[in-house]
Amino acid sequence: MSFFKVINKDKTSNARTGLLSLGKMSVDTPVFMPVGTKATVKALTAHQLYDMGCKLILGNLYHLYLQPGIDIIKKAGGLHGFMNWKYNILTDSGGFQVFSLGDIRKVRDEGVEFKSVIDGSRHFFTPKKVIEMQSELGSDIMMVLDECIPFTDDHRYTSEAAKRTLDWAQESVKAKRRIGGPGAMFGIVQGGFIKQVRRFSACSISEMDFDGIAIGGLSVGEDRDMTMDILAYTMEHIDRKKPSYFMGLGDPIGLIEAIGAGVDMFDCVLPTRISRNGSAYTDYGKINIKNNRYRDDLGPLSQECSCYTCNNYSRAYIRHLYKSREILSSILLSIHNVYFLFGLIRKAKNAIRANRFAGFQSGFINNYTNH
Amino acid sequence: MSFFKVINKDKTSNARTGLLSLGKMSVDTPVFMPVGTKATVKALTAHQLYDMGCKLILGNLYHLYLQPGIDIIKKAGGLHGFMNWKYNILTDSGGFQVFSLGDIRKVRDEGVEFKSVIDGSRHFFTPKKVIEMQSELGSDIMMVLDECIPFTDDHRYTSEAAKRTLDWAQESVKAKRRIGGPGAMFGIVQGGFIKQVRRFSACSISEMDFDGIAIGGLSVGEDRDMTMDILAYTMEHIDRKKPSYFMGLGDPIGLIEAIGAGVDMFDCVLPTRISRNGSAYTDYGKINIKNNRYRDDLGPLSQECSCYTCNNYSRAYIRHLYKSREILSSILLSIHNVYFLFGLIRKAKNAIRANRFAGFQSGFINNYTNH
Repeated sequence: MSFFKVINKDKTSNARTGLLSLGKMSVDTPVFMPVGTKATVKALTAHQLYDMGCKLILGNLYHLYLQPGIDIIKKAGGLHGFMNWKYNILTDSGGFQVFSLGDIRKVRDEGVEFKSVIDGSRHFFTPKKVIEMQSELGSDIMMVLDECIPFTDDHRYTSEAAKRTLDWAQESVKAKRRIGGPGAMFGIVQGGFIKQVRRFSACSISEMDFDGIAIGGLSVGEDRDMTMDILAYTMEHIDRKKPSYFMGLGDPIGLIEAIGAGVDMFDCVLPTRISRNGSAYTDYGKINIKNNRYRDDLGPLSQECSCYTCNNYSRAYIRHLYKSREILSSILLSIHNVYFLFGLIRKAKNAIRANRFAGFQSGFINNYTNH
Repeated sequence: MSFFKVINKDKTSNARTGLLSLGKMSVDTPVFMPVGTKATVKALTAHQLYDMGCKLILGNLYHLYLQPGIDIIKKAGGLHGFMNWKYNILTDSGGFQVFSLGDIRKVRDEGVEFKSVIDGSRHFFTPKKVIEMQSELGSDIMMVLDECIPFTDDHRYTSEAAKRTLDWAQESVKAKRRIGGPGAMFGIVQGGFIKQVRRFSACSISEMDFDGIAIGGLSVGEDRDMTMDILAYTMEHIDRKKPSYFMGLGDPIGLIEAIGAGVDMFDCVLPTRISRNGSAYTDYGKINIKNNRYRDDLGPLSQECSCYTCNNYSRAYIRHLYKSREILSSILLSIHNVYFLFGLIRKAKNAIRANRFAGFQSGFINNYTNH
């Protein structure tokens, strides 16, 4: 059985549905992966995620390496055992996190040195080491170490970083071959916002022995038009037989636009983060439950939603919980917002199967932005 | 059907089992009521409580009056509808909360004036008003307004306050009679730590038209021996045909000792509060998950426990969550600690039915304190 199979191709866009054959259970694409950075999708139990149909979440090597440490997770039989998650886990290498550290990290050709934000201790991540550690975690999909760069038009810097990411990708392929074992591995396309470099990175990563191709370094502060322009260009140059994964994108409109561009996988902290800030997705845009208009609104967060929260609780009640700083507000909003993205993707898949994705996309965006 | 029926009387202690016929569903006693002060048992969903077998929780008029306000709850069809809780709710009158305000409240013979901690606005609670408002909330068991006094041996002050509480109790009975409708009402015995006043209060409350008798003003900072001495004395003077309710007690040892003294009902914020501080009950005492010894402990919080948390998660994982300040640590610990008290009460009931409560009590306390 091949790792990835395209099932339907939409005739009105580049959108497609597919099937990922992962370690614990097959997963339909497009798929949104809730982010469980520190071995927990914030505010949700595993069973609340199962109830929503979630079969693939994301964990982060960098955070888990620092706390609680790989040794403890290994002792628990890997990340699945440690956090009691029975389905699939994709682990990020920590590239993005390390490069966000700024002053307290130093990039060398062999890898990246950084200081722990917890105790100031020094650490060194190499491409080989991050693959070894992700294998120890029992990751179902491992990500290579990459160099994320800030939003810049510096051609030379962008090229150098992309080149280093490609060298590291080669190292990762070698490491994975030596380690063997289960678990897929994805390469990461970088190249900033310079098309020439993007193309070079996309083609090179496509030629290497990866199970999937991630697109990194986008949605880092640039305009949405620029994101989508670079994304579309990148998609033209990657191997479309492999699944593609847009790292860190997950707002409803971005998700739908990227699905239309042919992307298969997504992750984002947004649905759980906005929940802790009192926001909720609806088909007609994001609402903030703090707003005084909801004080006696006995309707659900979203009329169209059938999540646990919308089936059981009102806007007025959730607003009261939020204003009272009750943990339950984060729980109920997180359930809703994660479920909302799952529901959105379900609708997108139906539209793809019916060859009407372009219409679905414009209809959704119109509703979402014009209310 | 009578409101309360004694089912078993233990021959080795004053402990007993009983049945409360409440509005939504009958409830076995002894019963521990998780505290849902602000219309939520902190960090738990209604369904997590149902799964534990919880059929009676506590809400607090004072907090709900200030936020979100009685009008909004009424519009939602009462507190059950507002918070989507399908079983029973006992509501506290707010006496204890108002009297904890110190400087910003003033006791008069007609009631108590206080300032809102939220916006500084002035409010006045009378015995009649708190019963009316609890009726509007749709409370299954309402509590009268009482005057809680700090730990003191001032005879005159204690007597005056107890006298006022009795006058207010009379007012409450009249108010309830006029309002009619469903919902039981409990009187509250006060009298501080002066036995003569306690007896007077206990006898007077017992003679009034209440469905149950609460014991207030204990466990307010005094030694446990003094609590139990005053409790035992009070129990001798209340009407034992009615259910008795020790307000605000819920640590495992206190619970068992008070059950042994004949108390039927309990509430306490402790199990959810200690959860947010990283503590867990076990049969061998309270543990704190922060402790370094648990860093790679893959066992459950308690070997003997069969709660969702103990069935699914390890000490090492919960410690990691707690150290990482993840909301899930509060959720998992709250599930465990509430379930632990439910389990403890289940065991107590079995001991009562088998006429071996005294042995159970000393065995439990010995295990709990000597490890």
